[in-house]
Amino acid sequence: MQTAPEVAVLRLGHRPGRDERMTTHVGLTARALGGDRVILPDNAGQSQSTVADITDRFGGPFEAELTESPNAVIREWEGRVVHLTMYGERVQDIEDDVRRAHRDDGEALLLVVGSEKVSFDVYEAADWNVGVTNQPHSEVAGLAVFLDRLFDGRELEREWEDADQRVVPTATGKRVEPADES
Amino acid sequence: MQTAPEVAVLRLGHRPGRDERMTTHVGLTARALGGDRVILPDNAGQSQSTVADITDRFGGPFEAELTESPNAVIREWEGRVVHLTMYGERVQDIEDDVRRAHRDDGEALLLVVGSEKVSFDVYEAADWNVGVTNQPHSEVAGLAVFLDRLFDGRELEREWEDADQRVVPTATGKRVEPADES
Repeated sequence: MQTAPEVAVLRLGHRPGRDERMTTHVGLTARALGGDRVILPDNAGQSQSTVADITDRFGGPFEAELTESPNAVIREWEGRVVHLTMYGERVQDIEDDVRRAHRDDGEALLLVVGSEKVSFDVYEAADWNVGVTNQPHSEVAGLAVFLDRLFDGRELEREWEDADQRVVPTATGKRVEPADES
Repeated sequence: MQTAPEVAVLRLGHRPGRDERMTTHVGLTARALGGDRVILPDNAGQSQSTVADITDRFGGPFEAELTESPNAVIREWEGRVVHLTMYGERVQDIEDDVRRAHRDDGEALLLVVGSEKVSFDVYEAADWNVGVTNQPHSEVAGLAVFLDRLFDGRELEREWEDADQRVVPTATGKRVEPADES
């Protein structure tokens, strides 16, 4: 998040149509909760556009990219790889190690978020396989909790650059203002 | 979560087909992260079945219900109502008040999670309108972060009853065991 080493999110697997919203929500969650970049499979162009459009309107910096080879992204990543999976070690046991690698050792992080089936290679390539609970739920929920814990809530204080509009927190109702930045 | 006052999640709005997975993920996230019950619109029977099936296999207690009138659920709720919305007050400013109401004052909580359009009535009926960031992202992500903060991470230590199987946290690979409870 901004001055810290990069945190990128890689989405594995995407079935056009069926996965459109889940993949889009992975990208938007990565953006909203402190990630710097999301990397989507190359058949997820529609999700990429949606995330880029939100970034144009609500600010960045945040990048949404496509890749032909998610496995190559993992293989060539310079930094540490965290694979979020319900089969992994408990997030509460692992998070300090990941935070230390990122914050103290300056390691860039790649957070890998699967869909239905993830090949065994990914489990082996990851520095950490991490479960946000060992229960079946949602890759979006797991990513959200992981990011909030990784950044210790500091992502909620993030400032946005080059936004067209901003939402003003309000007790009742909706308030949206033009973002006129200096 | 178990001995504490009830935490229920109400999903507003569901378009069969299009919203199936998001609604299912709302239900599974509510279950995995410490909720006691999810209440879905009555056209979301397929999501209800999926959540009930996961509860049968991986344990409970957790209830998945349908309602004909989500607005009546809000109106008649005995306790406090939290509406998660990107237009609301910042979660980091509100969470202590909600936690205190739940934990110290023994108030049951209804967490309301919208879909595309939420009527103004809901904003007015809520005790708190809360934004997990004031950015557009995912109702599943917002719910997940809110639950993790509400329970201060204690939901990750929860024990499951009447499960058929359990996942054993593992550094690499997948390990699932029959859950033979006494």
